[in-house]
Amino acid sequence: MTADTTPAELEQALADAAAAAAALGTAEPAVRAGWIRAAADALDAAADELVPIAMRETALPEARLRGEVGRSTGQLRMFADALVEGSLLEVIIDTADAAAKPVPRPDLRRVLVPLGPVLVFAASNFPFAFSVCGGDTASALAAGCPVIVKAHPGHPELSVRTAAVMIEALREAGAPDGSLGLIQGFDAGVAALKDPRITAAGFTGSVPAGKALHEIAVTRPEPIPFYGELGSLNPVFVTQAAIDARGKEIASGYVGSFTLGVGQFCTKPGLLFLPDGHGLKDELIAAMGGVGGGSMLNGRIKEAFDTGLDRLHKVEGVVEWASGGGATLLQTTLADLMVSRADVLEECFGPVSIVVEYDGADELREAIAAFDGNLTATLHAEESDASLVTDLLPLLTAKAGRVLWNGWPTGVAVSWAQHHGGPFPSTVGSIHTSVGVTAARRFQRPVAYQDAPDAVLPAVLRDANPLGISRRINGAISRDEVER
Amino acid sequence: MTADTTPAELEQALADAAAAAAALGTAEPAVRAGWIRAAADALDAAADELVPIAMRETALPEARLRGEVGRSTGQLRMFADALVEGSLLEVIIDTADAAAKPVPRPDLRRVLVPLGPVLVFAASNFPFAFSVCGGDTASALAAGCPVIVKAHPGHPELSVRTAAVMIEALREAGAPDGSLGLIQGFDAGVAALKDPRITAAGFTGSVPAGKALHEIAVTRPEPIPFYGELGSLNPVFVTQAAIDARGKEIASGYVGSFTLGVGQFCTKPGLLFLPDGHGLKDELIAAMGGVGGGSMLNGRIKEAFDTGLDRLHKVEGVVEWASGGGATLLQTTLADLMVSRADVLEECFGPVSIVVEYDGADELREAIAAFDGNLTATLHAEESDASLVTDLLPLLTAKAGRVLWNGWPTGVAVSWAQHHGGPFPSTVGSIHTSVGVTAARRFQRPVAYQDAPDAVLPAVLRDANPLGISRRINGAISRDEVER
Repeated sequence: MTADTTPAELEQALADAAAAAAALGTAEPAVRAGWIRAAADALDAAADELVPIAMRETALPEARLRGEVGRSTGQLRMFADALVEGSLLEVIIDTADAAAKPVPRPDLRRVLVPLGPVLVFAASNFPFAFSVCGGDTASALAAGCPVIVKAHPGHPELSVRTAAVMIEALREAGAPDGSLGLIQGFDAGVAALKDPRITAAGFTGSVPAGKALHEIAVTRPEPIPFYGELGSLNPVFVTQAAIDARGKEIASGYVGSFTLGVGQFCTKPGLLFLPDGHGLKDELIAAMGGVGGGSMLNGRIKEAFDTGLDRLHKVEGVVEWASGGGATLLQTTLADLMVSRADVLEECFGPVSIVVEYDGADELREAIAAFDGNLTATLHAEESDASLVTDLLPLLTAKAGRVLWNGWPTGVAVSWAQHHGGPFPSTVGSIHTSVGVTAARRFQRPVAYQDAPDAVLPAVLRDANPLGISRRINGAISRDEVER
Repeated sequence: MTADTTPAELEQALADAAAAAAALGTAEPAVRAGWIRAAADALDAAADELVPIAMRETALPEARLRGEVGRSTGQLRMFADALVEGSLLEVIIDTADAAAKPVPRPDLRRVLVPLGPVLVFAASNFPFAFSVCGGDTASALAAGCPVIVKAHPGHPELSVRTAAVMIEALREAGAPDGSLGLIQGFDAGVAALKDPRITAAGFTGSVPAGKALHEIAVTRPEPIPFYGELGSLNPVFVTQAAIDARGKEIASGYVGSFTLGVGQFCTKPGLLFLPDGHGLKDELIAAMGGVGGGSMLNGRIKEAFDTGLDRLHKVEGVVEWASGGGATLLQTTLADLMVSRADVLEECFGPVSIVVEYDGADELREAIAAFDGNLTATLHAEESDASLVTDLLPLLTAKAGRVLWNGWPTGVAVSWAQHHGGPFPSTVGSIHTSVGVTAARRFQRPVAYQDAPDAVLPAVLRDANPLGISRRINGAISRDEVER
């Protein structure tokens, strides 16, 4: 049932996806949205079957997994809504202008069209929200692209069952066969990535795996975009004023965030920068005493975590402050960190984080500058820090895709404004997001129709705007008809 | 004056660009727009000096070059306008929602920020519009990115003078030093592309050069986006009904389009598909008699053209119908083309095009399917072809970034709705355009601020919307204040 996909099965999956592309891609937005909603409804209805499989395969607790199903189906519906609303298609119309300089302008109507079949490499740590029914799949389907998911080996049976539920729902709703497919195994994943029918790929996983797959994608005879979410340290910087105001809360919030889900989030805060003399050590150790613990996703991830933890323990100047429930809190100073930068600033996926003590605002700036790209950077500060914060904001912005105030990076809201991406190596392709409505943009390319008769245009481009969507017409956003 | 950039000079250019990034990137939109407008004004004022240099270096005629200056400065002003209008920043705000499911939603405010210094490889064939002051430079500056232009060796003095005019204007307007730089020489270009301070690159040129540079960009230790416009054949498909209605006009329009600018446009129609029995041969030969001719851009391009023309002449089934003014019109049949596909469907940059005769609608579909990606695809058809056109539209859309009706692909309007890009190999990065307002998107990445105090946010994200720009607030486009 969960054996590796054979070459013949892979060929069938690719052929099915390619065959589905035209019908899926040219379906009217509301029709495609209906198919996506049907998949969401079916997943909700199947939660009682799917969650126990996920619990068995990932060791994640039921409440978390039920929440993740809700997040995933909510995400599918969000994309369906955005498709119907129309902004997902980014329609831009410039009507003809015979008086334009230096030459008369033709009628131009631009719309985003789907790239074609998309390959999604599922993640280990979110068996729903970044896996078969996750954000890459949802955004690609919304864009009108057939999806082939390469299942994560950490939850093979769940992947098969999730795909079956979605495929059946899509078919019953009228979506073309081949709109969704599933493959298993490393070799099948690489072969699919090299196949000319695959037009883009999404990936969530480790830096080495992501870099290797990225290189395959971009050096194919026909290069394709590869959207990879790789590794992130998610540093948190705390001022003395914040400690004075909320020290205990910061200590407990931090420990809660880095141990949440057994530290297996891409947004886990890997470092907490505290000013010298912060006085939070006891609070932090006390908070560690309350960590409930839990199993990691699988043996391979546990093994990698143990190796990484071992590496961190051996770094000059790093000491252990506390451990409990499988989680470890380490400490070092900024001076020591700068010496062992390469070792300390390598992501260790799992429940470990490092308190780094810094001395004054100059060292805080130095600390921020030490980082490569991250998904998130967090600042805990007070109003009295205003000038410091103004100073730090551009530095934080340069290093991260999401900048948080007085909060914790774990927990990624799924909404219009969300951005889940960041400078390399947190992602390959920092101009795109893998969460939020704009994630669909990864799988769409623009086409401009010049002087086309109204009757042959897709409905969203016609003068009368029969679907009533938002369009930019001669520079201004409107839902009106176009007057030629 | 136009010697290759030395390593020391390159280091200075890179350091200057990196130093300018923060001030250029965080300038208020209207301020940055003012700097860009100053550069446009200075270029217009310098046209009398620049155009003669361009004439001498490129052999292009004065009227064309003056038009190109106007197009380029109009383009700079278009980006300045879009920056002030605000859509270029794609601001999205989702206010906090304590009742959101499955978890409360924080306040999220997303804005596009500049990537950092951008390297632009200038083109040979548009010494203004795709060169130092061209679309890549304009869109990157609008995005807030310092630009280093690698001059095209075909117009070195013009590049130096154009850069000097712009640099002086930018400085006088108050833009940071290093906002624009110029380098010369192949080695300097490659070294810059590998430099970690360069965050993205734009390129317009040949398929082999573009592929080689693309590979360097995406396999760096820190991969960067490479937006390359490579080669395009721009096929034109004509129905019998169109010939019956406008045969003579089609013949003259085609010859005019493929010989325009001595055939040195990326949108030159390289093939014209005519139905068997079209009866246009005499009209086409007559139109060729009126070709005025002209010198090619430089000796190297002429040499490559001669080699390409020679190759085409030797292809089995290809015959010459006419030549004149340095231009050549060839003919073959679809059956022969399919046999020699690889030879015929290789871009030959210069004044040559091939009439391909096809037999019926099935062959027309076969012809479209034979192509890889193109910048443009054109259809000449009449109302009576309605069902055929409906059938062909998805096929044309799959192969091109711009689909034209009853027109000619040369001449690319610069506007909001324009799309100049297409599936590989016409571009690397088909989801982006190098012409039109949305070209800026290539050099911007999103950042989302979570729960940030209003006072620390960039003005465009503040509740009061002090700049009055368009923003998406809780899903809907508005210029209003935000109520928290």
